[in-house]
Amino acid sequence: MQAYINKAETLIEAAPYIRKFSGKTVVIKYGGAAMTDPLLEQMVMDDIALLSVLGVKPVIVHGGGPAINAMLKRLSIEPSFENGLRITDPQTMEITEMVLSGSVNKKIVQMLSDRSIRSVGLSGKDGGLFEAKLHRPDGKDIGSVGEIVACNTEVVTALMQNGFLPVISPVSAGDEGDSLNINADIAAVKVAAALHATKLIFLSDVPGVLREIGNPTSLISTIKIDEVPEMVADSVITGGMIPKITCAAEAVQKGVESVHILDGKSKHALLLEIFTDKGVGTVLW
Amino acid sequence: MQAYINKAETLIEAAPYIRKFSGKTVVIKYGGAAMTDPLLEQMVMDDIALLSVLGVKPVIVHGGGPAINAMLKRLSIEPSFENGLRITDPQTMEITEMVLSGSVNKKIVQMLSDRSIRSVGLSGKDGGLFEAKLHRPDGKDIGSVGEIVACNTEVVTALMQNGFLPVISPVSAGDEGDSLNINADIAAVKVAAALHATKLIFLSDVPGVLREIGNPTSLISTIKIDEVPEMVADSVITGGMIPKITCAAEAVQKGVESVHILDGKSKHALLLEIFTDKGVGTVLW
Amino acid sequence: MQAYINKAETLIEAAPYIRKFSGKTVVIKYGGAAMTDPLLEQMVMDDIALLSVLGVKPVIVHGGGPAINAMLKRLSIEPSFENGLRITDPQTMEITEMVLSGSVNKKIVQMLSDRSIRSVGLSGKDGGLFEAKLHRPDGKDIGSVGEIVACNTEVVTALMQNGFLPVISPVSAGDEGDSLNINADIAAVKVAAALHATKLIFLSDVPGVLREIGNPTSLISTIKIDEVPEMVADSVITGGMIPKITCAAEAVQKGVESVHILDGKSKHALLLEIFTDKGVGTVLW
Amino acid sequence: MQAYINKAETLIEAAPYIRKFSGKTVVIKYGGAAMTDPLLEQMVMDDIALLSVLGVKPVIVHGGGPAINAMLKRLSIEPSFENGLRITDPQTMEITEMVLSGSVNKKIVQMLSDRSIRSVGLSGKDGGLFEAKLHRPDGKDIGSVGEIVACNTEVVTALMQNGFLPVISPVSAGDEGDSLNINADIAAVKVAAALHATKLIFLSDVPGVLREIGNPTSLISTIKIDEVPEMVADSVITGGMIPKITCAAEAVQKGVESVHILDGKSKHALLLEIFTDKGVGTVLW
Amino acid sequence: MQAYINKAETLIEAAPYIRKFSGKTVVIKYGGAAMTDPLLEQMVMDDIALLSVLGVKPVIVHGGGPAINAMLKRLSIEPSFENGLRITDPQTMEITEMVLSGSVNKKIVQMLSDRSIRSVGLSGKDGGLFEAKLHRPDGKDIGSVGEIVACNTEVVTALMQNGFLPVISPVSAGDEGDSLNINADIAAVKVAAALHATKLIFLSDVPGVLREIGNPTSLISTIKIDEVPEMVADSVITGGMIPKITCAAEAVQKGVESVHILDGKSKHALLLEIFTDKGVGTVLW
Amino acid sequence: MQAYINKAETLIEAAPYIRKFSGKTVVIKYGGAAMTDPLLEQMVMDDIALLSVLGVKPVIVHGGGPAINAMLKRLSIEPSFENGLRITDPQTMEITEMVLSGSVNKKIVQMLSDRSIRSVGLSGKDGGLFEAKLHRPDGKDIGSVGEIVACNTEVVTALMQNGFLPVISPVSAGDEGDSLNINADIAAVKVAAALHATKLIFLSDVPGVLREIGNPTSLISTIKIDEVPEMVADSVITGGMIPKITCAAEAVQKGVESVHILDGKSKHALLLEIFTDKGVGTVLW
Repeated sequence: MQAYINKAETLIEAAPYIRKFSGKTVVIKYGGAAMTDPLLEQMVMDDIALLSVLGVKPVIVHGGGPAINAMLKRLSIEPSFENGLRITDPQTMEITEMVLSGSVNKKIVQMLSDRSIRSVGLSGKDGGLFEAKLHRPDGKDIGSVGEIVACNTEVVTALMQNGFLPVISPVSAGDEGDSLNINADIAAVKVAAALHATKLIFLSDVPGVLREIGNPTSLISTIKIDEVPEMVADSVITGGMIPKITCAAEAVQKGVESVHILDGKSKHALLLEIFTDKGVGTVLW
Repeated sequence: MQAYINKAETLIEAAPYIRKFSGKTVVIKYGGAAMTDPLLEQMVMDDIALLSVLGVKPVIVHGGGPAINAMLKRLSIEPSFENGLRITDPQTMEITEMVLSGSVNKKIVQMLSDRSIRSVGLSGKDGGLFEAKLHRPDGKDIGSVGEIVACNTEVVTALMQNGFLPVISPVSAGDEGDSLNINADIAAVKVAAALHATKLIFLSDVPGVLREIGNPTSLISTIKIDEVPEMVADSVITGGMIPKITCAAEAVQKGVESVHILDGKSKHALLLEIFTDKGVGTVLW
Repeated sequence: MQAYINKAETLIEAAPYIRKFSGKTVVIKYGGAAMTDPLLEQMVMDDIALLSVLGVKPVIVHGGGPAINAMLKRLSIEPSFENGLRITDPQTMEITEMVLSGSVNKKIVQMLSDRSIRSVGLSGKDGGLFEAKLHRPDGKDIGSVGEIVACNTEVVTALMQNGFLPVISPVSAGDEGDSLNINADIAAVKVAAALHATKLIFLSDVPGVLREIGNPTSLISTIKIDEVPEMVADSVITGGMIPKITCAAEAVQKGVESVHILDGKSKHALLLEIFTDKGVGTVLW
Repeated sequence: MQAYINKAETLIEAAPYIRKFSGKTVVIKYGGAAMTDPLLEQMVMDDIALLSVLGVKPVIVHGGGPAINAMLKRLSIEPSFENGLRITDPQTMEITEMVLSGSVNKKIVQMLSDRSIRSVGLSGKDGGLFEAKLHRPDGKDIGSVGEIVACNTEVVTALMQNGFLPVISPVSAGDEGDSLNINADIAAVKVAAALHATKLIFLSDVPGVLREIGNPTSLISTIKIDEVPEMVADSVITGGMIPKITCAAEAVQKGVESVHILDGKSKHALLLEIFTDKGVGTVLW
Repeated sequence: MQAYINKAETLIEAAPYIRKFSGKTVVIKYGGAAMTDPLLEQMVMDDIALLSVLGVKPVIVHGGGPAINAMLKRLSIEPSFENGLRITDPQTMEITEMVLSGSVNKKIVQMLSDRSIRSVGLSGKDGGLFEAKLHRPDGKDIGSVGEIVACNTEVVTALMQNGFLPVISPVSAGDEGDSLNINADIAAVKVAAALHATKLIFLSDVPGVLREIGNPTSLISTIKIDEVPEMVADSVITGGMIPKITCAAEAVQKGVESVHILDGKSKHALLLEIFTDKGVGTVLW
Repeated sequence: MQAYINKAETLIEAAPYIRKFSGKTVVIKYGGAAMTDPLLEQMVMDDIALLSVLGVKPVIVHGGGPAINAMLKRLSIEPSFENGLRITDPQTMEITEMVLSGSVNKKIVQMLSDRSIRSVGLSGKDGGLFEAKLHRPDGKDIGSVGEIVACNTEVVTALMQNGFLPVISPVSAGDEGDSLNINADIAAVKVAAALHATKLIFLSDVPGVLREIGNPTSLISTIKIDEVPEMVADSVITGGMIPKITCAAEAVQKGVESVHILDGKSKHALLLEIFTDKGVGTVLW
């Protein structure tokens, strides 16, 4: 009986956090390592399902690189590169769309359904969610890679108002009706900004921003976005973290209250970040 | 960190129960011993506040006998009896109303407000909630004691739809505009039936229905209401428990899914009854 | 038959006034002498009930000093003063709340109910209506006397939209959960301002503002609020009328169209002020 | 001042009646003598405007025989008869429509507008209100006289819900797109039945049903509709009163609570019938 | 079969235009020659009915000069002039109202009803649509001619929201309750501006603005409203076209996107103007 | 100009059909040959886009056999059969879902988007649209083939109410969270029945039901569903047409007004069936 009373007290402790985030929109970028370990996958879905049950309004934007690579390999499609950039040729694009919008997306929907959460999978094409155009970095042709020029969240809002949790694959259509692959981090930022989300959470492969690479005890818990340029100049933020932090800063500038970079491999990172004061990764605001 | 992960898992375990009762109306009869111990009082309010945060829709109906007795004593009003029945003379009625509708009721509102729950105190007079008439058991005049002839819950519903938790003092008006004292158990049944509540919970002074009086291990966990007459005939249900069980049976007959008799002195009894399968008292359905 | 035709014509004469005030919010401060004479009490309730039937939206804020004094006397609680200021000690506060929120408030609800008007009694605690803090005039401790720091009328508005007439006892909670006594005139001003009421009417013990104290023929019918400071300087407004006029001026500054000071002992003063051009007291605007 | 107090008391006396009929639909058939005396005309409009101000929902169905006759005379159109029945030839129909739908109807709208009541004139054609067909009593061709085969009150309801008082000219279209003249009494019955009106009031040229023709003291105050056949058989109801009573009985059978036949020439008959218990004409129910 | 396929393709071609104007308000001034030829009259109604079926929201404002003249002639009322201005004496006004509001208006309603379009006829008096005052050009008394001082389209909007097509006769009431005749072109402009219509279309007796009077090939297809003053100065716009163009310019200034002057005698001019890029008259914007 | 007038007249001819089907739900089963010819594909989308523009509410349920077969071939997955039944092994199921829900579904969404129609792709998993279980004909294991046990159209309805056209891939989840392939004809019937669709249209590879196979002039235009059993017994309906007709009959029994079997290869068959009286295939009702 005492065990039960302890559990009751855990619920009571969580009450202020539940009240604080009830009804708030939280966009979750889900991808990377958290997606390849079946157990972690189930735990992330448990966390998202709980958020939904507690009245938080989660929106999932997902990637799926490993699943795409596996299917390309089965079809013996060789990745092609030019000057170090991966080229998304038409065949690769076709497979990318099938895997992301048809397989990964529906699997997430199904895992939420198993937890009695009604969700709906969308791609950037559905309801005209993302309007995109060809992305040509420095004028280079890297194939069917797109950038988002407009984000129309009517379909997302309509689904949320009817109690459905939106699950978004970032594959979109270009202005000539062609399919384009979109970076999922950027897609998550655009959705969070358009929905005036309270939080945007990246479930990433690192514990957050570290002062010393590889040293988890050097985690920087909080960054104000106006400190970002100096941190880049001082090489505190480097390499692959730069575009992620740039994304995060853009989200905050567009009105998202805080952006969190968490380690998707850490158990229940999502819940701990939202339901404790301590937090487990890096928060930008 | 492991402690936090355990807490996260407690929340996840509770998810199915939260989903099950989210949006459901639960009428709680609050009174007796649970009201006189300041610590228990706070714990009951914690539990009710949590229910509200989790999306359950609680409605409180309260008594307040000890507080009334204390005030009568301060005013040196002697309780009067006739043939063993307490007589509610005009002075006693006046004090009863002031204490229940003006003091106990507002204290509960205040304790919920301290937990950020917006509640509104009502008496049976407000919004015409209860229409009452003089109660004359076997024709005897026992003073200003009433029975409910109609229950108009428009005011309760309006408050709930606007996010307020109703706290109800049973003092009502008779058909001649006189104040009448109403049994709080019966008031709770009438409200639960009129609101088509999912549950009606009596926070009582006993652990539930016991096969052997005074032996808590003889608790009867479940009673179907059609077993009640036989249990009374067999003296399984006796004494003061008879009217409470009769009330409970009436509530079930009028559409309340289940009625629970819990020990209000037991820690977090409310939460345990709702958020575990085990339960801690007697349930009638 | 001619008598009936005359009555029909009275109704027709009133039509433009009815149309003018239909749907408008009128806050009525009810207290003092109008509350102690049973006949006057009934007439005031007749007037308020009629306003409600005619589509005006009345809100009552009430005091109840004489009833509090009577109960204090029965409990042999001696009023205590310090430097001429009444001290509200804890016992006095307890009785004040019981009498105002539990007795006076419910009696008004009942009298309106007798006239088929559905009303709901509220205190400053209900729905978090008034947020208050200890009032310390010139730093002096006068006990549990409060001043209003915020007025949240969601509960009042919700009730009005559902057809209920709100009846407000000014007793509120301080920031430490303690009960505080609030001046009913000031409470009425805060409610009127927050509701953007069209009119605020004080049913007072005097016919209005008099040029010569004691001479009813010296009534000043109309005061513009920017004349007030000069009238105080010239000793036209003096004594106990100063705080009332200051209240009235604050209400006008916050958007109430006009504030009326009427003699609550004068028959049907409320109706005459609203349904004739002549008026019967002093109006500030 | 006493005069004003008396008026206040008149208003208070009327309160229960106002409450009783507030929000109720009352269909008023307006025509005959009450329409030709300019002073009476103004008084009827005063009464209807007051009803509207007091929250009653009046709907006017009007005739206009004298105005039609005057215009026919100006155009030197001779009335033609066959076997005692008036023949509505095409020219007469054209003039009837212009006068009823274009002149009388708009005059009523204007008189209500002068009293700050927003009304909208409709004919049987507007919004497809009445579907009609040629009326051929005993197979005789009496020209463009129609009978109503369907009553579609969507347009009436839409206007009422938006706060407009509908004023209805009974001229309608036949199934071949031709204009047809419809008896206004019958049109009023159809509208009252379709709107589930609480009352249907005929402002007629007689004081009601009289036991002895010409003797106003022989007025029959109340008739139950199942007494009608016997009253016709016994020649209590005779002549032109028969079709009116038949109409009234039909309205009651279709759900109108009561039908009143009043003397439109009697001052404020409408108000007296609604706002006193006594009544001034004959009521059928 | 090929003929049917061609028809299907015609529908598909029209789709972009249908989508463009679906839900948009189009005010149509209907009068003049298009009203006197029965065949043209039917074709105009076909066009308006189709617009309505395709989701466009048409509002008709009509004149009716020839019908008024015919009735005046039947009544031997001589037109009277003073200094070249037609005088609208009381008799003429009475007939004008009857013909416009009672005959022409109801005929249009009926023709739309024959096409299964639910429409409602209004005059400027109904619902207080137009507030007018006597028009005194250069101080001259020309009788009951009015100018619009306010346009209250609540009744129009309420009808449109309930699926009814409004048909408006411009006869209105002056500030003394007198009937006034209003120029239908001006009435159409006021309604279009108040409704924030997308288009205002004048079905006139000329093909549009011609560079050379009488030469249809000299049609000016497009005029920007800031070119109007110069075109008047250069005598490109002359005579009776000046007030019409002035009206059109006022409508554009008040937010109507474009104003079209079409030849009402040209077959399906309405449809061609809306559903082709070419257009058939003069458009001002 | 005459060509334009003819087009205007085509639109006017279509008006009654447009009015008749405006707001009605039409479920279209799209698959087979109409999907493999790029030109036909565009024409079908033109037709569906036009229906949507005209206010009809289309819902698309699609198959995609040829695209699945092409991808299976690219992956060198051999189709396996047992006793003539195709076995959907796990690999085949994985590819089927990716192709149908990720490729075919999104292509249709994109083609509608190119026509300015906002559509949203769904699979049977999204929003819990279809609940399915393993299909075991005569107890045989044919792999991941499912049958629908429940159809929850809340997500479809929510999207339609917000102006989105639903495009449904029939792949669903079984009760163990496994993906199942569902026959698209049956899925279309279930959706049409659940939505109370007015029409269900099968765009098939045949002109309809033929009396003589291969002879298009022997087309049976109309079948009443109670004639079906006899037609099967008489071998009028044979082979692959039997399950389609059985489906159609089930839809009619469940409340769909009519089911149409059209030749998807015939130009604009959809429009001709809806917008002419003649029709082009077989209709069941």
